[in-house]
Amino acid sequence: MKVCIIGATGHTGYVFEGLSGEDAPVLAGIAPGSPGESIDGLYRDSIDRGFSPERFDDYMEMLSKLKPDIAAVACYFSDHAKVAAQALKMGIHVFVEKPVATTLEDLEMLKEVHRDSGVHLCAMLGLRYEPSFRTAWKAVKDGKIGSVRLMSAQKSYKLGSRQDNFKKRETYGGTIPWVGSHAIDWLYWIGGEKFESVRAAHSTMHNRDHGELEMSALCHFTFSNQVFGSVNIDYLRPSRAAGHGDDRIRAAGTEGVIEVRGGKIYLMNNDTDGMIELPLEDGQPIFADFVKQVKGQGECLISAGDSFMITEASLKARQSADENRIIVF
Amino acid sequence: MKVCIIGATGHTGYVFEGLSGEDAPVLAGIAPGSPGESIDGLYRDSIDRGFSPERFDDYMEMLSKLKPDIAAVACYFSDHAKVAAQALKMGIHVFVEKPVATTLEDLEMLKEVHRDSGVHLCAMLGLRYEPSFRTAWKAVKDGKIGSVRLMSAQKSYKLGSRQDNFKKRETYGGTIPWVGSHAIDWLYWIGGEKFESVRAAHSTMHNRDHGELEMSALCHFTFSNQVFGSVNIDYLRPSRAAGHGDDRIRAAGTEGVIEVRGGKIYLMNNDTDGMIELPLEDGQPIFADFVKQVKGQGECLISAGDSFMITEASLKARQSADENRIIVF
Repeated sequence: MKVCIIGATGHTGYVFEGLSGEDAPVLAGIAPGSPGESIDGLYRDSIDRGFSPERFDDYMEMLSKLKPDIAAVACYFSDHAKVAAQALKMGIHVFVEKPVATTLEDLEMLKEVHRDSGVHLCAMLGLRYEPSFRTAWKAVKDGKIGSVRLMSAQKSYKLGSRQDNFKKRETYGGTIPWVGSHAIDWLYWIGGEKFESVRAAHSTMHNRDHGELEMSALCHFTFSNQVFGSVNIDYLRPSRAAGHGDDRIRAAGTEGVIEVRGGKIYLMNNDTDGMIELPLEDGQPIFADFVKQVKGQGECLISAGDSFMITEASLKARQSADENRIIVF
Repeated sequence: MKVCIIGATGHTGYVFEGLSGEDAPVLAGIAPGSPGESIDGLYRDSIDRGFSPERFDDYMEMLSKLKPDIAAVACYFSDHAKVAAQALKMGIHVFVEKPVATTLEDLEMLKEVHRDSGVHLCAMLGLRYEPSFRTAWKAVKDGKIGSVRLMSAQKSYKLGSRQDNFKKRETYGGTIPWVGSHAIDWLYWIGGEKFESVRAAHSTMHNRDHGELEMSALCHFTFSNQVFGSVNIDYLRPSRAAGHGDDRIRAAGTEGVIEVRGGKIYLMNNDTDGMIELPLEDGQPIFADFVKQVKGQGECLISAGDSFMITEASLKARQSADENRIIVF
């Protein structure tokens, strides 16, 4: 089985993590996915990790020549949909950075192409595979907190100094889709309800010369069965802090409360002695899970439907913030 | 100086905490504030604490006869505004449970009466005096996190089994004003910005035979300068959990992050070694602070303007949830 990587902007590391072990795919080729995107770093990284991909300037030429089973798409975010659609049309399975599109029009186009393709697609919502979030999801599924009623999730990142493609809405897509989509996914995945409406707000103020990049955002989702969820997103984490991010979710249910914070998971219900820490489920490389599905050996944790839904929710939240109104799903 | 308590439903304990020490007011009388409200428990409590108030059935008779300097109003929530207004009209200073009104019409009436009264009013937003929140406010004021950009606050309570006045919107006013107003106040007080709009949602589902009482709620506020804040509110805390509530706020600013959780306060900025715990400022009885203002010895931490503003914000959030739309201030 052969995989090609298109682009060097998103989480290409997910692919590398899934390339070890027996029967793992071979990294056959790499190419940029967007005009002006450099893959020098990605190439060096590939070599350092012991792979020897063929290097292309044109990803279409690469796909035609190498005929990979899987294309991993991680170029400038606004090109995800176009590149993914081209691969799908060639019958190539697609592992694509989230958001899978940065406009609702591109998303519709991609959904349609996927519908007709007969191949698989999975967005890089890799945090579902983090032991703490995976354990939270399992605990909720196992009924530890009863029916989920209210959730709040957080993504807080360091800003650092980001490439030019982060500074323009046209290439970046916005902080809600790029950073927030993970947390929006937790609400959807752990809450298990359907999106009904969203009200969001975002601000580019104090973004330290990062053009159109939003530094802070807040989303308020309503779901089926009167379940509600908030997502707060910021790039305000102090540069000196340990670690890049501070990912959290709290879910309160009819029988208890669960919380992920600092990579740990806590549960409180009427069977526990206060807030207890739960042992973590094993993690798993996301790409290996997708490869398993491509091989017909089971379902990947992130379906194409999930990938599209989270992108839609992120883009509708962004639209709500841009237009200062409630968007109904 | 004499104080009378009207009603036995809200936080009358705040009054008792402020009655010790030299020059403290004397508890002269108690009376119910709402039809059907029992003050038996309050009377016993007064005696147990060593006070000997005169007991009345009619608070107007009590005010006329005892001519107190201060009336503490804590009856059924929907009667706060009417009772407070009656006391103000008699030139009596008012210490009143929050929300100070349960309708915007009552709030306007009370504001007008207060404007003409020449006496002081303070809402029982007692959590401003809790050491952790007070320390958070001071740290923000001292510039420890720069300009506040994004906040999220939480109120989570045990439901237990509540009196009938909690089960009807007409007497209860709603969970957002009753429970949420504290957290809405933290956003306002710590953020230091003006309310601009609110989107909220609430649900009575799974309320264990509590009629119209909302079990969960979520509010999304936008403030001046593109500052945003969420408040999540629930009665879902397991009955076996230690302590009644789980009060929190996190505020992320241009220079750092501050967080109150579990009665402690944490700060992270580029001068700290990761997230550090701050020593707590001293607490102070809220009622004693109000008495000081009544005596002309300084400003109370909670102004009448704050009391009205937080009530307005709570009622507009409730309206947003009821009408499923954004309310602009």
